[in-house]
Amino acid sequence: MPVVLASESSAATQKWLKLIQQHFPELDAHIFDSADNEKPKEVRAAIVWKPQSELFERYPQLNLIFNMGAGVDAILRQSGIPPTARIIRLEDGGLANPMIEYVVHYLSGITRNFAVYEQNRAQRLWQSAEQTPVDRLTVGVMGLGVIGARIAQALSALDYPVQGWSRSPKELPGVTCFHGESQFADFLGSSQILINVLPLTDETRDILNRDSLQRLPQGAVLMNIGRGEHVVESDLIELLDSGHLSRAVLDVTRQEPLPVDHAFWSHPAITLTPHISGPTNHYVALGQIRDKLQDALQGKPITGEVKRDAGY
Amino acid sequence: MPVVLASESSAATQKWLKLIQQHFPELDAHIFDSADNEKPKEVRAAIVWKPQSELFERYPQLNLIFNMGAGVDAILRQSGIPPTARIIRLEDGGLANPMIEYVVHYLSGITRNFAVYEQNRAQRLWQSAEQTPVDRLTVGVMGLGVIGARIAQALSALDYPVQGWSRSPKELPGVTCFHGESQFADFLGSSQILINVLPLTDETRDILNRDSLQRLPQGAVLMNIGRGEHVVESDLIELLDSGHLSRAVLDVTRQEPLPVDHAFWSHPAITLTPHISGPTNHYVALGQIRDKLQDALQGKPITGEVKRDAGY
Repeated sequence: MPVVLASESSAATQKWLKLIQQHFPELDAHIFDSADNEKPKEVRAAIVWKPQSELFERYPQLNLIFNMGAGVDAILRQSGIPPTARIIRLEDGGLANPMIEYVVHYLSGITRNFAVYEQNRAQRLWQSAEQTPVDRLTVGVMGLGVIGARIAQALSALDYPVQGWSRSPKELPGVTCFHGESQFADFLGSSQILINVLPLTDETRDILNRDSLQRLPQGAVLMNIGRGEHVVESDLIELLDSGHLSRAVLDVTRQEPLPVDHAFWSHPAITLTPHISGPTNHYVALGQIRDKLQDALQGKPITGEVKRDAGY
Repeated sequence: MPVVLASESSAATQKWLKLIQQHFPELDAHIFDSADNEKPKEVRAAIVWKPQSELFERYPQLNLIFNMGAGVDAILRQSGIPPTARIIRLEDGGLANPMIEYVVHYLSGITRNFAVYEQNRAQRLWQSAEQTPVDRLTVGVMGLGVIGARIAQALSALDYPVQGWSRSPKELPGVTCFHGESQFADFLGSSQILINVLPLTDETRDILNRDSLQRLPQGAVLMNIGRGEHVVESDLIELLDSGHLSRAVLDVTRQEPLPVDHAFWSHPAITLTPHISGPTNHYVALGQIRDKLQDALQGKPITGEVKRDAGY
């Protein structure tokens, strides 16, 4: 199964190649080299992350493009992709578990005030901090794809009341599901902790703005592990400053790396991490891609195919 | 079902009484008052946490003593308990989930270096910290009762390789189980993260000492959410100082509150919390006690009965 690897980072493609050679030798992989003029006609599949656009000029016959991430906003903005090519995204790729861990880490840090113990220590003070019982906090998860659903269920298993919102109706055990524009306000109005895992599309860009964030209950917390472009950043700052929101935990920002003069850096109500909530486990991801490629070559249906018109 | 409430804290018994009156009125509860001389003969059940020993003089007929906690080391040291009385401990009492949350918070803090992002922020540095992939860290859970088993399975679900050790043989899906003294060294030798949730008994007191801690792999982490008396504290400090252990996360200490002159307060490789990993959810606990009392009164078997000779 010949496959070409391309990404914005040559360190990344080298790493993928090494993993493939070690664990998935049935993939006959090579790294795309824009200086090389050979055009291996038989290559119909590519594994990519923000690839050079020359890739698609050199390999116009590509019809299976595996995106090495769950978010496909970058690849859908990319020019030159053959219109008939199928784009397959990572549905999990080992991302869901680290993201659950990230959410539990920062959420419990807030509800259980763990940071206070570091402060108390300077005074050698042995004293319980205030804890909010989990059953008094409703967590709202925006986006109920593979990752959002796993996060919602993990928090439900920890006794948090959990509700979710997605474009189309979903059913998840233990999770109250809202959908569509008509139920968005109700969903927001009862989400004391809002976790965004939506895909970035034309419909979801700027979805967290003054209007929507104001609908959250007083003192609500926003956790954004989706995309920076979901949030109108000046609106978020305004609502943090007014005290309507008590905290924002942001793993993503509109511009990454975050510019050094950006207000987020020094805002006391913002917790900031550099897009690390869901590090792709490349070993897991390549195994999933290998399986899907095998299935596709045998004409079997595969999941995770991007609806290019819907944008996710 | 008449029941008497007694604890070292009158605020606690008041809280229990209020919850019972609101949610479990079928329990006819009153608070033990050592000044009161009435001896209600019909009361055969008590709900206690470190009760006054006068309780047992006043109510010698008590035969069901519900301990408002999972650990029974305190009540078994208490004098005056009628030798025929059955002591029932909380098996979960809503403790397991907060303890899972605690473990995931501090464990992910270590493996994913979350604290670095707070430091980087001062320099406005947007940069991933080193992360240890979970599949390269074996977590060993000491104690596989209701709580230990739930912790082990929660970490296994997050892709950590998990092994457990208990006195008697256990079987847990996804968890490699060791048992007994003969398998203790093997268990320790492969536990890069050691989480202690053992009950405190004569057999387990001081179980984490120079000998056992030295068997952990170089750079191992100890997390103690059991009892302070499991750890020989000077041995732990020695092994942290030598670098054999890289960190200890301690929720419990031999003396609580930890004395102000104790070396733990200022040790850079120790993370310290004041016995808050598993706050009993009194509502959940009282519901479980109500169910068990009903079963016991109907002659049905109940779980969680303490083997007084084994000490747990």
